[in-house]
Amino acid sequence: MTTTPARRLTRKGEQTRARIVEAAADLMFVRGVAGTTLDHVRAEAGVSSSQIYHYFSDKDALVRAVVAFQNDAIVGQHERSFATLDSVPALRAWRDQIVAHQERMQCQGGCPIAALGSELGELDLDAREGVAIGFHRWQAAIRHGFEAMQSRGTLPAEVDVETLATATLAALQGGLLLCQMHRSTAPLAAALDTMLDHVESLAQ
Amino acid sequence: MTTTPARRLTRKGEQTRARIVEAAADLMFVRGVAGTTLDHVRAEAGVSSSQIYHYFSDKDALVRAVVAFQNDAIVGQHERSFATLDSVPALRAWRDQIVAHQERMQCQGGCPIAALGSELGELDLDAREGVAIGFHRWQAAIRHGFEAMQSRGTLPAEVDVETLATATLAALQGGLLLCQMHRSTAPLAAALDTMLDHVESLAQ
Repeated sequence: MTTTPARRLTRKGEQTRARIVEAAADLMFVRGVAGTTLDHVRAEAGVSSSQIYHYFSDKDALVRAVVAFQNDAIVGQHERSFATLDSVPALRAWRDQIVAHQERMQCQGGCPIAALGSELGELDLDAREGVAIGFHRWQAAIRHGFEAMQSRGTLPAEVDVETLATATLAALQGGLLLCQMHRSTAPLAAALDTMLDHVESLAQ
Repeated sequence: MTTTPARRLTRKGEQTRARIVEAAADLMFVRGVAGTTLDHVRAEAGVSSSQIYHYFSDKDALVRAVVAFQNDAIVGQHERSFATLDSVPALRAWRDQIVAHQERMQCQGGCPIAALGSELGELDLDAREGVAIGFHRWQAAIRHGFEAMQSRGTLPAEVDVETLATATLAALQGGLLLCQMHRSTAPLAAALDTMLDHVESLAQ
């Protein structure tokens, strides 16, 4: 597996590369990575094969870019929207937004980062590590809110916010998987509500 | 997608069919469903192609049998080992067994039922429904323990054991995904410990 070396791109080059990655991300979310060929991506992005190979040496390189794209899209979205996930009401609003998003998606597809990780976790070391980076960043974004609660005294000093943030991300991911399989947001709501009840029970 | 009609099998026929399903389950866990061909299954099970087609009309039919097999293997194992998951110490022992199993697996592969669901959830309606049946059965097995705790008075009557069981399964599934991606049992332990701390905080 080789990587096309990073190089400066013109603005137009950046746009073309972004269009390819976004098309690949959409296709892989709907059809899976195995079910998506470079030819599908070419058609969806409206580019030529030689344009794809100009930016990506092979499909593996494109997959790595898709993982990074989804990390930025999803965890970045979390970071922008919930920069201050530092109170129980803020956490409840976060939960509401996630459940509403899944309602809009009709519970289809689950978490795009988890879908990539689950499909590629044992097949593509780089992809798994990319997904792990995304989850690490997501856990940190959640943890920062708990740390802020702790420094304000809303959460007691003895609460292990590292563990609590990991458990919150796990509740979200497990809830999303059950939501996708059961085609219902009820298990997602159950997972997040129970987790946030626990956080609230620790708060003072 | 057609199903070979159910029919009586001889004992030898049952054994051959079981060998095919088990070989397919092992291969699909390691290589994914997309990466597993009927030819791989034939070689792994040591059977002929015509033997496979005697029992399964096509790969989709075999996949359905693999989902049912994993439901029985994993949820059935839970039901047999934890028929009485009806106390906090029993729940902690359950958590220890899951974490120890992942240690032995070197955190590879995640939950076989979840892996099938995540790969096939949007591609194969029957497979998704089969996975949903497995998760429903698993949730019920966990809920039965909470119901027993409630009827003994260990959990207060006002606790919603349905929600609590769903959240516990979500914590397990999310924890297994993070465990697989990070190649560490720490996030799995964090997810389950936090969930069981919450159950313990509700117990009286």
